[in-house]
Amino acid sequence: MREIFDAELRQLGQDLVAMSARVEQAITNAGIALGTGDLALAESVIAHDLAIDAVERELDERCVLLLAQQQPVATDLRVVVSALRMSASLERMGDLARHIAQVARRTYPRKAVPQPLSGTFSEMHDAAVRVARRTTTLLGSRDLALAESIEADDDLLDELHEDTFTALLGGSWKGTPQETVDVTLLGRYYERFGDHAVSVARRVVFLVTGDFAEQVDAPTA
Amino acid sequence: MREIFDAELRQLGQDLVAMSARVEQAITNAGIALGTGDLALAESVIAHDLAIDAVERELDERCVLLLAQQQPVATDLRVVVSALRMSASLERMGDLARHIAQVARRTYPRKAVPQPLSGTFSEMHDAAVRVARRTTTLLGSRDLALAESIEADDDLLDELHEDTFTALLGGSWKGTPQETVDVTLLGRYYERFGDHAVSVARRVVFLVTGDFAEQVDAPTA
Repeated sequence: MREIFDAELRQLGQDLVAMSARVEQAITNAGIALGTGDLALAESVIAHDLAIDAVERELDERCVLLLAQQQPVATDLRVVVSALRMSASLERMGDLARHIAQVARRTYPRKAVPQPLSGTFSEMHDAAVRVARRTTTLLGSRDLALAESIEADDDLLDELHEDTFTALLGGSWKGTPQETVDVTLLGRYYERFGDHAVSVARRVVFLVTGDFAEQVDAPTA
Repeated sequence: MREIFDAELRQLGQDLVAMSARVEQAITNAGIALGTGDLALAESVIAHDLAIDAVERELDERCVLLLAQQQPVATDLRVVVSALRMSASLERMGDLARHIAQVARRTYPRKAVPQPLSGTFSEMHDAAVRVARRTTTLLGSRDLALAESIEADDDLLDELHEDTFTALLGGSWKGTPQETVDVTLLGRYYERFGDHAVSVARRVVFLVTGDFAEQVDAPTA
């Protein structure tokens, strides 16, 4: 029984890594679609999100089955419940990547991000891709140094988010209402993406150390 | 043992009702603070969100303890796992109410919502308060007719959200970039509030009937 359970737990871990890899793909392609005005790529991200949602439901069901059949206690229980939480965060990260792609699709052939902010969003894209890649590696390696760097990436995403507001509200903004709306939404999607990655990272740290850092939601509304 | 477990499950249910009641209070006060420019009320909503977060953490821990000590199977297991999911949705709804209050605080003494949209946001407030109240009642009563009306409220919130975009992007919008940003954010907070209420409602329907409606995320990005 113990061997079966250990195998199931290892499978859970591998599935979370695979799910995170899909999210990495989604956020990478969403940002490229946004920056280059690539409609086909945007459509592909939107379509692939259904697969991420399906993986979450399936992982959920397997967690519940594990709880029912193996009735784990202590550390094992913590692992299974953490897997439930992390798959929910990863599914939400996939949704945010889809939302970014939906903006790119909606404004096509116009690029959603006006020229003055293309540098800021390029940096946001890089930080988000990095945070997703680190999340995937962290889920596989449990290397807590990665958890720290994910927190740093999230701080950077928060700063870049603030930069977009500074641009929008500084007084020299010349964008249309549509551009203002889209930049507001996109900035928020990237900022929330970082927040969810931090959720996953803190959950991994909790599994390894037993300590859970208090979730402090981004103060900007 | 069975009696203890039944008592624990009943307590879980009561705690979810209490948590939802707090969320109802939060969204009600947030909307009033927004509409009337009430700084003290906004501050109160922001402060009280910490209590909602604390309730979620405590409820989570109790669910994990229940899983560890009672090792429930079948329906009981489904109830405990559902409680985990629902408390996460309710916590997020509390955060969204806090975000609404933070916008009201940030723009004080100016009202965040410009006059042309005050009617739309007044309707959004009413729908969100209604959806929160129905969620509280549904959690206590398991009356599935309420689940249907929550879906209807969410549809209304989606429509009102669309109305804000029509106003912003229709060509006759005269708001400042700040007002455009704030209306965009506020509309999204209300729309996501409805989405999470639907998550809770569908989870209750699942517990009662065994059927789970596919979560379709709002298509607007």
